[in-house]
Amino acid sequence: MTSPSTISPKFLCAGNELGVVAVGFSGGQRKPGVDAGPTALIQAGLLTQLKEDLGYTLHHDDEVHNYSSLMPQSDPDYRNMKNPLAVSVVTQRLATQVYDHAKHGHLVLTLGGDHSIAIGTVAGTSRAIKERLGREIAVIWVDAHADINTPETSVSGNIHGMPIAFLTGLAKGEKEEMFGWLGVEPKLSLKKLVYIGLRDVDKCEKKVLRDHGVRAFSMHDVDKYGIARVMEMALGHIGTDTPIHLSFDVDALDPQWAPSTGTPVRGGLTLREGDYIAECVHETGSLVAMDLVEVNPSLEAMGAQETIRAGCSLVRCALGDTLL
Amino acid sequence: MTSPSTISPKFLCAGNELGVVAVGFSGGQRKPGVDAGPTALIQAGLLTQLKEDLGYTLHHDDEVHNYSSLMPQSDPDYRNMKNPLAVSVVTQRLATQVYDHAKHGHLVLTLGGDHSIAIGTVAGTSRAIKERLGREIAVIWVDAHADINTPETSVSGNIHGMPIAFLTGLAKGEKEEMFGWLGVEPKLSLKKLVYIGLRDVDKCEKKVLRDHGVRAFSMHDVDKYGIARVMEMALGHIGTDTPIHLSFDVDALDPQWAPSTGTPVRGGLTLREGDYIAECVHETGSLVAMDLVEVNPSLEAMGAQETIRAGCSLVRCALGDTLL
Amino acid sequence: MTSPSTISPKFLCAGNELGVVAVGFSGGQRKPGVDAGPTALIQAGLLTQLKEDLGYTLHHDDEVHNYSSLMPQSDPDYRNMKNPLAVSVVTQRLATQVYDHAKHGHLVLTLGGDHSIAIGTVAGTSRAIKERLGREIAVIWVDAHADINTPETSVSGNIHGMPIAFLTGLAKGEKEEMFGWLGVEPKLSLKKLVYIGLRDVDKCEKKVLRDHGVRAFSMHDVDKYGIARVMEMALGHIGTDTPIHLSFDVDALDPQWAPSTGTPVRGGLTLREGDYIAECVHETGSLVAMDLVEVNPSLEAMGAQETIRAGCSLVRCALGDTLL
Ligand SMILES: [Mn+2]
Ligand SMILES: [Mn+2]
Ligand SMILES: [Mn+2]
Ligand SMILES: [Mn+2]
Ligand SMILES: [Mn+2]
Ligand SMILES: [Mn+2]
Repeated sequence: MTSPSTISPKFLCAGNELGVVAVGFSGGQRKPGVDAGPTALIQAGLLTQLKEDLGYTLHHDDEVHNYSSLMPQSDPDYRNMKNPLAVSVVTQRLATQVYDHAKHGHLVLTLGGDHSIAIGTVAGTSRAIKERLGREIAVIWVDAHADINTPETSVSGNIHGMPIAFLTGLAKGEKEEMFGWLGVEPKLSLKKLVYIGLRDVDKCEKKVLRDHGVRAFSMHDVDKYGIARVMEMALGHIGTDTPIHLSFDVDALDPQWAPSTGTPVRGGLTLREGDYIAECVHETGSLVAMDLVEVNPSLEAMGAQETIRAGCSLVRCALGDTLL
Repeated sequence: MTSPSTISPKFLCAGNELGVVAVGFSGGQRKPGVDAGPTALIQAGLLTQLKEDLGYTLHHDDEVHNYSSLMPQSDPDYRNMKNPLAVSVVTQRLATQVYDHAKHGHLVLTLGGDHSIAIGTVAGTSRAIKERLGREIAVIWVDAHADINTPETSVSGNIHGMPIAFLTGLAKGEKEEMFGWLGVEPKLSLKKLVYIGLRDVDKCEKKVLRDHGVRAFSMHDVDKYGIARVMEMALGHIGTDTPIHLSFDVDALDPQWAPSTGTPVRGGLTLREGDYIAECVHETGSLVAMDLVEVNPSLEAMGAQETIRAGCSLVRCALGDTLL
Repeated sequence: MTSPSTISPKFLCAGNELGVVAVGFSGGQRKPGVDAGPTALIQAGLLTQLKEDLGYTLHHDDEVHNYSSLMPQSDPDYRNMKNPLAVSVVTQRLATQVYDHAKHGHLVLTLGGDHSIAIGTVAGTSRAIKERLGREIAVIWVDAHADINTPETSVSGNIHGMPIAFLTGLAKGEKEEMFGWLGVEPKLSLKKLVYIGLRDVDKCEKKVLRDHGVRAFSMHDVDKYGIARVMEMALGHIGTDTPIHLSFDVDALDPQWAPSTGTPVRGGLTLREGDYIAECVHETGSLVAMDLVEVNPSLEAMGAQETIRAGCSLVRCALGDTLL
C-alpha cells in the first residue's frame, strides 16, 4: 500500500537511515501507563511498516528503555517539580541516545513516553545538528498544550508541562542532576518554535507566548485558515533552510481519534488534520527528528487501539507514507 | 486558562457587566426536560467561569424561573398553537426581564429553555436598544431549523418553531395574551436576520426565506465556503454599526457534540465551528445579548454531559474566552 | 422538507423520469450481506422520498434482483478471480437493465450490491449515451479504493476491486462469459475518470494512476484544498458538456458515518462532504446515472442504520435534494 518516499532529505546523510529510541518513561506526569506506549506502537507493527513498506533501514537496539538503573533512590519535590531527579537523568541519557543516532546524519524517531522526554530528544538533535551542520534547529510542537510552564508557574508540578521552558532557557537548570546538564546555552530559540493545535493553555503560558511573540496556531486558527494554510504559515515561519524536529503529542488530536492519553482536551485536530501536518513536514525534506508521545494504552479499554493506530499513522505520514 | 476579553463593546456601557436570566421553561415544545437546561449549565460551573475566569460582574437573581405563578389554568390549542397562553405570558415577562438588564447597557445572557423564549429575549433587547441608542438590532440565529413557521404553516403546533415569525411580524399576535403584547411594530427586520447552520427547513419556510431574501447559511454553505468565510459574509451583511443579538440553538451542533436536545439533526456544525461562530461574534464588539437554548439534559444518559459542556463552551466563547 | 429540483438536466429527456435497478448481488467480494443493501435502503424509505419529496416518476420493477437463474453451477477461480462467471453474467445482465432505462433518456439509479456491479452499470450507461447522443461519458468514482486492479495485480482476487480495470480496458475480457461481452472498445476512457476520497490504494494501482495521469483526489487533497475546491477541480476536469455517471462507494465516507461496509478505511469523507459531492454533481445538470454500492446492513448491529441513512442521504442529494 505504501512505498519509500521520493523526497530527498536536505539535512541527513541518507534518506532511509532511521535511528529509533523507545522510551518507556512516565515520570513527567502522574498517570501510570504511558510508559507502555512504545511497546504498544511496536506491537501494532509500526517498525515493521517503516522497514517493509517505507524502506527504512532501522537502527534500533530492540529495547524499550525504562532506565531503571538510573532511577534515584529518593526523589523529593524540588521547586514544585515532581520526580525532578528522575526526569533530569532520563532526559540526559536520552539526549545522548538521540545524539548518537543524529550525529551520523540519520533521521531519529523517538517513541514515548510522556512529553517530558522531549527535553532529551530536542537537546540531542540540537547538539548533533549544530556539530554536523553548524545550524540551529526549529521545533514544530503539535499539542493541545503549550508545555512552556516553568517550575514556578506550573500548578501541577508535572514536568511534561515544562519541556519547552527548559529547552528555551525560560526555566533554568541548576545542579547537573537538576537539569544543569542542559548547560547555559538554550537548546532551542523561541523564534524557531511553532505550535500547532493549542487549546488548553494556562494564563501564565499565554502571557509568555504573547510577550515573546511565539508563533502559535491554536485550534481557532485551524478553523479560521484551514489546516493547509496553517501549514503554509508554519513552514513559512521556519523557512526552507532549517532542520526541523517534529514533536507530536498525540493529545493534539481530538479525543475522538486519540482518547487514550493522559490529558485529553476536546475540540482538537481530526486524524486527517494530524496526518496532514505530518505529511507536510515530510514534504519539506527538512525533518531530522520526530517524537511521538503521550500514547497511554492503559487509560481506555475501547480507545486504546484507536489511539495506537492514530499514533502509527502520524509517524508513517511524517516518514513519507502517502495516499497516492 | 482564560482571562477577561480585550474587545471593547460598542453598544454597551461597560464591557464586564452581565445580566443573566435563567429560564426553566419548556412549553414551546412537548418533550419534558429542557426546562432543566439552565440548572445543568449553572451546575457545570458556567456562571462561576464567567465571573472568575472572564471577569464579568454578574447581575443575576440566582433563580431559575419556571414562571409557575403565570401559568394559565387552561391553555387549549389556538390557531394550531400548543400552550399559546403560557408561551405568550412567559415570553412577555421575559421580555421585561431582559429589558431591565439591557436598559442599563449591560450585556444580557439568557439560558433556556426551549427556543420559543427568544420571542421574549429578542423583544426585550430590541426595545432597550431602540430606547438607549435609537437603533435596530440584528439577530444571528444559529440553528438546524429556521423557526419561522406561522401558526398556520406549522405542522407540529410547537411554538419553538415560530419565534422568528412572531418577531418579524410574519405571524401576527391578536389579543394581548395571545402575543398581542408584541405590538404591531416588528421587533426584528427580516433584513437584519442571519441564519447559520440550517439543515432541516420546512417547505413553507424555504419559500418564506426565498421570497424575503433572508440571508441564510445552510450546512451546504458551511461546507462550500468554510466557517471562516461564512462568518465574514454573515457579519458583512450585518455591518459594523449594528448591535447583535446572538440566539444559539444547541441543535445547530451535530448530535455528535450535542445529542441531548429535543430535535437533533445530523450533519450539523462541529463544536469547533460553533465555538468559532461565537468567537467571531464576540470579536465584533457588537454583541448585546445571547440566548443559549434547547439543552435538554434529560434526553440522554450518556450525551447530556457532553451537550452541557458544549453549551458552556459556546457561551464562554461568545463572552470573550479565547484559546490564546 | 424537500421539493423537486430546479436544475434542468442537459443529457436526459426529462428531469423527473427515474429508472431504478435494485441489485442484490455480493459475488464481487466475500463478505455476505451486501446483497441485502438495496432492500435496506428501500425499506428506509428511499424510493418513497424520491417519489413524494423530489417528484420523480419511478420506473422500477419492484424487485431486488438476485439473478439466481443466471448463477453458474460451478465457478472456479480463473486468472485469480473469485466467482468470475457469476460476476460476468450478472454485470452483463445488469448492463442491459441499465441500458433499457437509459436509452429512453431517463436518469438511472442502481442500488447495490458490491462495487463489481459497476462493470454493468457503467457499460449500460456508456452504451445508451453513445447511441442517444454520440458522446462518451465521464465517471466520478467516490471511493476509499481505486478499484483498478487487474486480475493479475489483485491480491484478493475479489472483482469488486477490478471494475475500473475492466471498464477502461486495462484488464481484458476473454470468452464471452469471462467479461468478453464487454467487447474490445473500452466503456470508459481513463481521461474521463475522476476519483474522490481515495486513501487505501495498492502499490500497483498507484503506479497505474501515475502512469496514466488519472485525475485522483485523495483525502490528502480534500484536506489540502477543501471539498468545495476539490469539486471545482473535479468538475472542471470533466467539463460542462459531458454526461456524468456517479459511482458512489459508501466506504468513501469515514466509518464514523458509514461503518457497515465490507472494507471500511479510516480517515474518510464526512457525511457532509459526501452530501456536498452529490449536491455539486446534481447542480451540473450533467448527471445521467448513479450507483450507490457497498452498504452491507449485516456487518454491524449498531452502525447499520447509520450507514443506511447515510446512503439514502447521498442518493437524495445527487437527485436534487437541497437544504434551502
Ligand atoms: Mn505535550
Ligand atoms: Mn498535551
Ligand atoms: Mn431553534
Ligand atoms: Mn433547532
Ligand atoms: Mn469501490
Ligand atoms: Mn471501496
